[in-house]
Amino acid sequence: MENTGVVIRDVMMRDGLQNLKDFIATEVKIELFRMLVASGLQRIEFTSFVSPKAVPQFADASQVAQAVLPITPIGVEVSALIPNLKGAQFALDNGVRRLAFVMSVSESHNINNVRRSTAESIDELKRILALKEKHPDMIVDVGMATVFGCPFEGKISPKVVLQFVQQFYELGIRSMAVADTVGFGNPKEIREVSRLCVSEFPDVVFSVHLHNTRGLGSANAVAAFESGVHILDGAVGGLGGCPFAPGARGNTATEDLVFMFEAMGITTGVNIDALLEVAHYFQSVKPGIDFSSNILEAGVPKYLGAITQNSKEQKWG
Amino acid sequence: MENTGVVIRDVMMRDGLQNLKDFIATEVKIELFRMLVASGLQRIEFTSFVSPKAVPQFADASQVAQAVLPITPIGVEVSALIPNLKGAQFALDNGVRRLAFVMSVSESHNINNVRRSTAESIDELKRILALKEKHPDMIVDVGMATVFGCPFEGKISPKVVLQFVQQFYELGIRSMAVADTVGFGNPKEIREVSRLCVSEFPDVVFSVHLHNTRGLGSANAVAAFESGVHILDGAVGGLGGCPFAPGARGNTATEDLVFMFEAMGITTGVNIDALLEVAHYFQSVKPGIDFSSNILEAGVPKYLGAITQNSKEQKWG
Repeated sequence: MENTGVVIRDVMMRDGLQNLKDFIATEVKIELFRMLVASGLQRIEFTSFVSPKAVPQFADASQVAQAVLPITPIGVEVSALIPNLKGAQFALDNGVRRLAFVMSVSESHNINNVRRSTAESIDELKRILALKEKHPDMIVDVGMATVFGCPFEGKISPKVVLQFVQQFYELGIRSMAVADTVGFGNPKEIREVSRLCVSEFPDVVFSVHLHNTRGLGSANAVAAFESGVHILDGAVGGLGGCPFAPGARGNTATEDLVFMFEAMGITTGVNIDALLEVAHYFQSVKPGIDFSSNILEAGVPKYLGAITQNSKEQKWG
Repeated sequence: MENTGVVIRDVMMRDGLQNLKDFIATEVKIELFRMLVASGLQRIEFTSFVSPKAVPQFADASQVAQAVLPITPIGVEVSALIPNLKGAQFALDNGVRRLAFVMSVSESHNINNVRRSTAESIDELKRILALKEKHPDMIVDVGMATVFGCPFEGKISPKVVLQFVQQFYELGIRSMAVADTVGFGNPKEIREVSRLCVSEFPDVVFSVHLHNTRGLGSANAVAAFESGVHILDGAVGGLGGCPFAPGARGNTATEDLVFMFEAMGITTGVNIDALLEVAHYFQSVKPGIDFSSNILEAGVPKYLGAITQNSKEQKWG
């Protein structure tokens, strides 16, 4: 089933789980992956090859990779986050082909997050790209954090963002994500940055990573999509809070995005009911989990039931 | 202070309170009104002249009207909902000048809601308009419920909506609200209906009443505003659930709308901090109240603090 609409990349297993204090059992993670795939999602970020000291939740990154890669259907793109060369090497050793390197476009956020200046992060990226000699099928996506605002530096100029895009482009990166890491962006800014990126780098595939912290997730998603960015991140259940705003909403819920786009006639290829099953499964494993998902709360209007009929069976046909 | 941006009409005191089982004391309602005015809001719907048997919450509509009308600053438009002639007469007797008559564009929803066919509701509207002889300064707004979907009938054709608009227009109505009563609408539909209304009836002032039931409040608000509808309803704290979706979000929060538009550079004239004071005051009166407001949860980003500085003092200057 060719997807001519919007592509939703689910990051529940990475951005969603990374804020949870309790370790989620490896088998649960693998089951989440199975269920996410069964929903029809075409892109899944399934773990982070980060130091277990920094994020104990991903101490089982290699086990998860080894379990999920063999059961990933053809046509489904899976990726793992990597913060540095060590993570990249570790991911490649475990058979991961698509690496999501993340750095911040805000100097102070990058230092705070990965203890490197942005120049040092770009040097690290170059070392990672050098691994291509041994791993010719490696793909490196670059995710730019704090594009729409930084908790330390405030607004980031689109010019600064474009300078980073240019640098990544010169290194051969053709897949980049712009992230509203703490939910500071608004539709006007999302449009401006999206349009600049898409028009100035037409051969780069851009995606957006939006947080719903201030309720602008849906507005920002429409803004990005209509400005030419057709890959959007979501997390089932809206899992993934913002450490700077306890109690606030995290990632835009995948099921909310799927509902909105399908209701607008923009196909996702994803079955909402199957996404809700993922959420219910996770609730059964972690009772009281703090989801923030409107569709989970309110349900799909009955008369719009047809939009949930992207059959998961079709994906396996 | 002339407002050249978006106008947010707060309906917390009407749509927000009407779903609460416990009676809110009249003094609390009056204090809410004082605080809403102090925030800089230019439009407030402050009660409903409905049968106290149907909605006991508004049994004090006349006391509230008599208290708030004398303290309403010049330039602030206040209105009360009226479901029928009796309510209109009662509102006028209590000095209310602006009446918000509500009916549904879905036949079955109208019957369910006000026990009348839509034709009977329009006859009732004619009887209400006849009161203009005795009350020449009376203004009647018409609110159309279920424009973007009905829980009984599903989607409503924009043609049907326009036919209603035409009928109201012929009766002399020049202020109309289109309501997404149960949160079924999406940006595509909001745009279509908004553009049709605005282009076909250029001398009517349209507003939208959006519910955030499925998380599309912000996206739908942007869609409406950019399609030419410049008055949007909100309710402080997102108060006002949907009876068809227990636990789901209700009205789009006024503070979320103010944040979004101000962040986009579209002025509201409203002080967010003052809106949050309204929410905190109501929380102090009704501990544990089920708000659904992102800004209340996450706060305004510090670096965007300037947008909260629409001084409330200015309004009284």
